[in-house]
Amino acid sequence: MKYTTWDVPEIGEDLVGRVEAAAAMLHDGSGDGAQYRGWLTLPTDYDEDEYTRIQSAAQRVQADGDIFITIGIGGSYLGAKAVTHAMSNIFTGVRTAGGKVEMLYAGNQLSSAYLQELLDYIKNKSVYLNIISKSGTTLEPALTFKVLRAALEERYGEDGARERIFATTDKERGVLKDLAGKKGYETFIVPDDVGGRYSVLTAVGLLPIAVAGISIDDLMQGAADAAERYSAPYGDNACYQYAAVRNALYESGKKIEILVGYEPKLQYFSEWWKQLFGESEGKDGKGLYPASMQFTTDLHSLGQYVQEGERHVFETVIDIEDPGAEIDIVQESGDADGLNYLAGKTMHEANTAAREGTRAAHRAGNVPQIALTLERLDAYNIGHLIYFYEKACAVSAYTMGVNPFNQPGVEAYKKEMFSLLGK
Amino acid sequence: MKYTTWDVPEIGEDLVGRVEAAAAMLHDGSGDGAQYRGWLTLPTDYDEDEYTRIQSAAQRVQADGDIFITIGIGGSYLGAKAVTHAMSNIFTGVRTAGGKVEMLYAGNQLSSAYLQELLDYIKNKSVYLNIISKSGTTLEPALTFKVLRAALEERYGEDGARERIFATTDKERGVLKDLAGKKGYETFIVPDDVGGRYSVLTAVGLLPIAVAGISIDDLMQGAADAAERYSAPYGDNACYQYAAVRNALYESGKKIEILVGYEPKLQYFSEWWKQLFGESEGKDGKGLYPASMQFTTDLHSLGQYVQEGERHVFETVIDIEDPGAEIDIVQESGDADGLNYLAGKTMHEANTAAREGTRAAHRAGNVPQIALTLERLDAYNIGHLIYFYEKACAVSAYTMGVNPFNQPGVEAYKKEMFSLLGK
Repeated sequence: MKYTTWDVPEIGEDLVGRVEAAAAMLHDGSGDGAQYRGWLTLPTDYDEDEYTRIQSAAQRVQADGDIFITIGIGGSYLGAKAVTHAMSNIFTGVRTAGGKVEMLYAGNQLSSAYLQELLDYIKNKSVYLNIISKSGTTLEPALTFKVLRAALEERYGEDGARERIFATTDKERGVLKDLAGKKGYETFIVPDDVGGRYSVLTAVGLLPIAVAGISIDDLMQGAADAAERYSAPYGDNACYQYAAVRNALYESGKKIEILVGYEPKLQYFSEWWKQLFGESEGKDGKGLYPASMQFTTDLHSLGQYVQEGERHVFETVIDIEDPGAEIDIVQESGDADGLNYLAGKTMHEANTAAREGTRAAHRAGNVPQIALTLERLDAYNIGHLIYFYEKACAVSAYTMGVNPFNQPGVEAYKKEMFSLLGK
Repeated sequence: MKYTTWDVPEIGEDLVGRVEAAAAMLHDGSGDGAQYRGWLTLPTDYDEDEYTRIQSAAQRVQADGDIFITIGIGGSYLGAKAVTHAMSNIFTGVRTAGGKVEMLYAGNQLSSAYLQELLDYIKNKSVYLNIISKSGTTLEPALTFKVLRAALEERYGEDGARERIFATTDKERGVLKDLAGKKGYETFIVPDDVGGRYSVLTAVGLLPIAVAGISIDDLMQGAADAAERYSAPYGDNACYQYAAVRNALYESGKKIEILVGYEPKLQYFSEWWKQLFGESEGKDGKGLYPASMQFTTDLHSLGQYVQEGERHVFETVIDIEDPGAEIDIVQESGDADGLNYLAGKTMHEANTAAREGTRAAHRAGNVPQIALTLERLDAYNIGHLIYFYEKACAVSAYTMGVNPFNQPGVEAYKKEMFSLLGK
């Protein structure tokens, strides 16, 4: 991965010192929330028996399943959705190369229209479920699981349903752990030392990703290489430099970081990133607002605002060098469609020109630019990018002076809602 | 539609006067961009012959088509996508009640992976295309149309393809108009006095919406009723009051308006809204940043930021009273899943409690609240909401002191891109 910036503030010694101190706090466990740093070493330090069970379970689903539904909200589905979406066919929802299981997601909201249409859609298909919830009491997944579980038990019987349901939950206690024990579901663990938004490289993310037919070995290898690379000193460490730059931009008055992709398959990577940064930094009245755009799509929508609206935005662009498909632009006799100036070029060359042209235009509009360049959207590169962002986020939040690992504000709506529901 | 606010600034006489002046400018054509006010009277004043041709074309596609691809970018697809998505099955992409044609969208970006997967997906299916471009030279739709047109001509022959391609374009001139004439495509008109982001109630939006099996009569009736209702004096006019409130919030230091929905089918309505407000207001260094969230989904992602991050946000929530599907929550013997406190309630009651609980929580976090309440997601109500937002946006932008109808910043990236591509 390559890291590049344009028109960002110069980083003074003081800020470098603060970032280095933040990184030291992260590594030595002297910062707030230190008990949630398990993700730091996950790429090389994980439960090998569970990892093998994940691969076996995935093979079993692949052999027989049409549909795999991941039931979870927030960090319990966004990592898996980000990775599977990046590597799946946009129109069929199955792995681009070779896979056969359609990946669906549920239990991340309370729409009865959504759930009813899902129930209709899965009729007459071979369905597997993965319920992911540390406590089992989070309303959205719990309620959705109740309904889908009943549908599977009705169709396959209790014994048949047991073979099709996986529970990823606390290792010892909680409503879901107890229910899984009683029903005999195979279980996987949400570790105590890894928060939801940092959990994609645990069973939370790895089981659905493996079911999709994506190499979790490659994913973990990308993350492991990133863990090594982004432990380097500041001067050689893009992860720390990015943390410094976004703090410098924030301190200079920028309020919104826009994560931009030029490939639609990155859409859910952006959603994962929004939770990571929004929950980690958005507290104590602080934090860059994490927004996302898909270009060139949104150049014809929010592009006007980025170019000429309030000057409180900057952009971080994920560039993909090889899109994995090529379309040649052919000559038209008589130039009937006016596109012969592009003949002999490829569509990706046009996309690259759009990207470079946009960068020039937005720089002229005083929008600072950051780019992260990946060779391609594969498991290795995505694993690398995930770890880069996880570490950058923790270091950035500590530098900003907030605890990267708590989310006290998420309880507020639950408390009000449960009171209305008479719990 | 019901309009409600909580914790918004009191609107002084001065601001009321400015909003009334903005509305007068809009109606009498004395403001900037007055030549683009054709949308104001569209719900009752439109070309009836073309309207009938739209309905005939839609019937023809419905009789024989599996897939209808709308090729356009920005305002040339967002309105149709917003409406069809709101009323289509989430998993099959066809109209919830009765429809049979899957609605797909292309030409809104330059990803070759997207286009290649689309080409693979439509093989062996009966495909119709609607290319929508006023000039025909906008790169994204032009290039995509070139490739899809070639695929149809190869499969159906030039005569067969002719019957399957509709061009919505300028009434007199341009590359696409000329190409359509040469090829013999049926054409529909992008009017001169309606800008892209205001074009959903012209053929631009109406043809795909009609093909989806949605009543364009109901859609237009909803808009017509809104046109009448939102011409009332300020005191009785929710549209003007909303324009005033968001200006007051902006002047009080709020920088981001978050459009929130609790039904996933509203996702693309939010995208349409983002273009409408982003392009209309985001200029001269001004404008609220238009963001969107889906709740409860994003309460477990960006909810922390909304609750406790920078206090520069407010929320406008689209409430849907009847979600169109109902799921009962049943009693579990022994309360094995801990949800018996909900037994006898419906899932939508839980969603409503989440909405009310979130409103209370966010109010406690100093996030002002606006709600627009629709009875249900049907063509009439969506038509009403579209017109409400179109007019509110124009009045709001004039009140802010910017031209609601131009988008000078959108040209900047195109100029740089075309230069890189050697045009």
